[in-house]
Amino acid sequence: MKYTQYYIPTLREVPNDAVIVSHRLMLRAALIRKLANGLFAYLPLGLRSFRKLEAIIREEMAAIGCLELKPTVVVPGEFWKESGRWDAMGDSMLRAKNRTGGDFVVSPTAEEAITALLRDDLASYRQLPLSVYQINTKYRDEIRPRYGVMRGREFVMKDAYSYHTSEASLDKIYRDMDTAYRRVFARCGLATIPVSADSGAMGGSGSQEFMVESDIGDNTLLLCPTCGYAANVEKAECANDGEDFENKEGEVSPSLQTRTPVDTSTPKGASAPPSVWSSATPSPRGSTPKTPDQSVARDGLQKIDTPHVRTIEELCAFMHTVPQNFVKTLIYRAVNIETPEGLVPEAFYAACIRGDLEVNETKLAALLKAAEVALAADMDVTRITGAPVGFAGPVGLRGIPIIADRTATGGAAMTAGAVTGANEADKHYANVVFGRDWKADLIADIRTVVAGDHCVHCGAALYEKKGNELGHIFKLGYKYTKSMNVTYLDENGKAQIPVMGSYGIGLDRTLASVIEAYHDEAGILWPATLAPFHAVIVPIKYEGAVKETADTLEHDLAEWGIEVLLDDRPERPGVKFADADLIGCPYRIVVGDKNLSQSPPAVEVKRRGEKEARLVPAETAAAEIALAIRQEIAALNGAQI
Amino acid sequence: MKYTQYYIPTLREVPNDAVIVSHRLMLRAALIRKLANGLFAYLPLGLRSFRKLEAIIREEMAAIGCLELKPTVVVPGEFWKESGRWDAMGDSMLRAKNRTGGDFVVSPTAEEAITALLRDDLASYRQLPLSVYQINTKYRDEIRPRYGVMRGREFVMKDAYSYHTSEASLDKIYRDMDTAYRRVFARCGLATIPVSADSGAMGGSGSQEFMVESDIGDNTLLLCPTCGYAANVEKAECANDGEDFENKEGEVSPSLQTRTPVDTSTPKGASAPPSVWSSATPSPRGSTPKTPDQSVARDGLQKIDTPHVRTIEELCAFMHTVPQNFVKTLIYRAVNIETPEGLVPEAFYAACIRGDLEVNETKLAALLKAAEVALAADMDVTRITGAPVGFAGPVGLRGIPIIADRTATGGAAMTAGAVTGANEADKHYANVVFGRDWKADLIADIRTVVAGDHCVHCGAALYEKKGNELGHIFKLGYKYTKSMNVTYLDENGKAQIPVMGSYGIGLDRTLASVIEAYHDEAGILWPATLAPFHAVIVPIKYEGAVKETADTLEHDLAEWGIEVLLDDRPERPGVKFADADLIGCPYRIVVGDKNLSQSPPAVEVKRRGEKEARLVPAETAAAEIALAIRQEIAALNGAQI
Repeated sequence: MKYTQYYIPTLREVPNDAVIVSHRLMLRAALIRKLANGLFAYLPLGLRSFRKLEAIIREEMAAIGCLELKPTVVVPGEFWKESGRWDAMGDSMLRAKNRTGGDFVVSPTAEEAITALLRDDLASYRQLPLSVYQINTKYRDEIRPRYGVMRGREFVMKDAYSYHTSEASLDKIYRDMDTAYRRVFARCGLATIPVSADSGAMGGSGSQEFMVESDIGDNTLLLCPTCGYAANVEKAECANDGEDFENKEGEVSPSLQTRTPVDTSTPKGASAPPSVWSSATPSPRGSTPKTPDQSVARDGLQKIDTPHVRTIEELCAFMHTVPQNFVKTLIYRAVNIETPEGLVPEAFYAACIRGDLEVNETKLAALLKAAEVALAADMDVTRITGAPVGFAGPVGLRGIPIIADRTATGGAAMTAGAVTGANEADKHYANVVFGRDWKADLIADIRTVVAGDHCVHCGAALYEKKGNELGHIFKLGYKYTKSMNVTYLDENGKAQIPVMGSYGIGLDRTLASVIEAYHDEAGILWPATLAPFHAVIVPIKYEGAVKETADTLEHDLAEWGIEVLLDDRPERPGVKFADADLIGCPYRIVVGDKNLSQSPPAVEVKRRGEKEARLVPAETAAAEIALAIRQEIAALNGAQI
Repeated sequence: MKYTQYYIPTLREVPNDAVIVSHRLMLRAALIRKLANGLFAYLPLGLRSFRKLEAIIREEMAAIGCLELKPTVVVPGEFWKESGRWDAMGDSMLRAKNRTGGDFVVSPTAEEAITALLRDDLASYRQLPLSVYQINTKYRDEIRPRYGVMRGREFVMKDAYSYHTSEASLDKIYRDMDTAYRRVFARCGLATIPVSADSGAMGGSGSQEFMVESDIGDNTLLLCPTCGYAANVEKAECANDGEDFENKEGEVSPSLQTRTPVDTSTPKGASAPPSVWSSATPSPRGSTPKTPDQSVARDGLQKIDTPHVRTIEELCAFMHTVPQNFVKTLIYRAVNIETPEGLVPEAFYAACIRGDLEVNETKLAALLKAAEVALAADMDVTRITGAPVGFAGPVGLRGIPIIADRTATGGAAMTAGAVTGANEADKHYANVVFGRDWKADLIADIRTVVAGDHCVHCGAALYEKKGNELGHIFKLGYKYTKSMNVTYLDENGKAQIPVMGSYGIGLDRTLASVIEAYHDEAGILWPATLAPFHAVIVPIKYEGAVKETADTLEHDLAEWGIEVLLDDRPERPGVKFADADLIGCPYRIVVGDKNLSQSPPAVEVKRRGEKEARLVPAETAAAEIALAIRQEIAALNGAQI
């Protein structure tokens, strides 16, 4: 390909909003252009790399028997209403009404569309397992799109979906996908960290994310240096810090799987909980108040004046104690909570946790099966606790479910008596004992694990990294197949619901992550598998013998199957070198009169990223470079995973 | 590929709404499934053919130097407001508001997006010509989607756009595209008819459609058997039927290019025209009424009573004359009319034409630069003409521009005196003479040409065909580059506006058209270039020596680069044969014990569509079929265009 026949409007300057390296380089090297906030177009050069990534993914999907198909990008809102996500997806879903007022969605993901597509043809267990994928346009209306294609609104996702007659069959495809994903990223030259992940609004039983380490990553990962435990902070667990966090008798944290509708004695009100509580959990507050709302402490409970004290730090100073001795109580508002009776639009919850720790809102949302949780507004806190913000506490708190982190219910300090807000301005309780002074509706792990916490498996101190999610594999369970009425007949002719998985890779951010990992001051250093061209030929001046040799090289490289760009522009060599470095093709071949006049005539070959060029006989240069490129591609494609 | 590892849920029955062959076969052969009205998903088998069509198009675009890029599917409404099409596109455009209330569009076409994408990087004439394309999702909210993917709402289009410093350069790419399109369709085995076309709401100076003949075509084509003239009826012209249709002095039909704002003496009112009239056109009705609105005829004009007579046929009977002697007058409502002063939402026009002819609304809309024209509602006709529907006439008609087809202004019968409505219930004028009794604001060709009309070039009688449009190439002119402020600096450093072209192919309907052209009672007969698999191996019973031979054949064919499906299902041979015929792969190889026991062992080879199978030695079958497939592909790819 001749440079002048191609379209590579490289840039020296980029807009200020391009702050990360990949965004800057993708703009500068003319791989992408911004069409609008969060909307990026791929220019021809960028699209070449993009297509190579698509091809890698297609090969790895084919290798595990996953079949490509293509639903539409615009899908009926009806599907989303069936699955229950029409409301749960909120504003991140781009909706449109057609000319007759029908609801449509620009697909943010396709569990619904694929399930709707396949269900009518699914008759027999013999058709399962079935594993299909698409590589297609998605749209999510990100609140703050940024970092170029790393977090855009429109993007391309490889999304696969599988349907099974058994969990064991799902497990197998899930493991196959895990392998395929590791291979995809390895072939891109990316070191990814597979981590346990929350399954968010998707529902389901198990999920793993493929993270790439990044300073601008929007995920925090907790990693164990000893046993290899790795989890997204949204999901990360930790050991109990050597303290006794065993739950007290009768207050066993119910598992999510066994939760059944609430004891109807629970008070109903504006902030009444959806019925997600286990019958195994005592619901004492509705029937017998744990603690009378009185100002005289009972059995050692003491109400104390804490004027002008709001934060735990101030309180520690005031009371000469440490945050570990506090039960911090936060009032949360949850929206779109899934319950057996349907979606509850809004409910409030009190979350209690040891004073030095933070509540993990993703864990809390997952626990509640809520689309989202966030701290309640001040006016709601005041309405619920009867006190200004800063004085909430579980003792005597009524009309709102209390969710206690394990750390708020046990531990030496807690058992000996903790400090907590008294739901009254400028008042706290001291000597508070869980079980005696307050109880919880649910005890669970809602703690944000931090670096230094101990590995739940081996006890080693965890460390943190920031990461970007490139892929995500999910065991979805029966959420979609059940709500969307998918059945097949089993060996006995009995109708069964298939179990389902879903598996995504974000192509745009994978490409951006490659550039984050492979660049230097001058530009990109493409891995050979994704480089838009394998080599660029730079004639010092495109005329005479130089032109002839350059043309021959281009022809010979093409014969070897090597994709080559010949910079035939009438520009100074410095400009051409700078653009070649910026674009970042693996090999640069400089053709000049001086080296051609040697015996034998030579050209200068430089691997992108290496300092020094080598002289290579012009005669053998094409074969040598072709061999090197093939080896590099083979090495990446055959990389250990 | 083993059949049991693949996904081909063929159907015996299809829904009643699948009325055309391609729709029925695409459903039955499991190429597509319906997701919603006008929304179709491609199943794996259909997607294989779809990808082959994409590849053919990519090769032909590369051959003419057109570069692939990829803008987003969702684009800002802003671009469409810039170009002026935000309103003009009407309800066919699917619009969405994002979370901050911004307007977005699911692209129905991409003149705006591509122009917006490229304009910032366009600096110098050296960058032009620039020719780019995408193959991407489009959405048009068809009122009545039908015929499967032939007329769906979401579809995939190859849309190319070119930018030039001169009309000559545009002409060259336009011709290159013409060639590329002919090659694309030839490689698909399709006979297309290139016809002159209206450029509709796109604006522009020249355009050609690639039609494929079809009984269910939504286009009518007028074709000359002698000189090859071919045009869409929307655009078709014809000779003047041997009559004298020359315009009278002073009433030359102005060309669209030279139209300038209206004479301000034209009356303004509810139905005042947008200012699209040439100063060359007399505007006498505003200044001096042509005919006083009186009941006494002047110079032979006669008002006659025509009670209980409404249609031209009734009037002919009543007056013992023929429709050719009438001037039919129709009141049209036009919407979104482009004028130099901006878009006019609505205006009314009277259109006069000889009584035996029909007004071509597309021609009329193009003439007016209106998004759409349609007959005015009865109440508007009554308001404008002062008479019930059926009595409109140009004599004395005020407050509405009169557009006369050439046939209403000349010809022997017309010159001698015609019959027309008198704008009064149960009254007509007789002995009406154009120029004396009425004048037109614009004389133009607004006639619908029909079979039997005479070729404008050679005079032969034209004939009609129905056709479906598969491709369309446009010279757009400056419409988008001007409205969207695209400039480059020419050789003299002076800012210039580039001239633009656009070029589309509908992939879905091309695929459907191939099936319309290639099928029989039993199923599809794929051309080798588009067949999802080149061959299907049918073992009579997949076990023992038969299995061994079938597996060997599959392996050997794959080695030859032939895509093969091995039907390893435990089904009766009849079921497998029926599915093989339905899917329509070019070659079927039946492996059975009987033929294998011959010496040498043989298999049965049948070309799809041929009646008889041949026995071929198992040893050489793969090579023979590979050769045949390669020849068929080469023949299609090298077909004369």
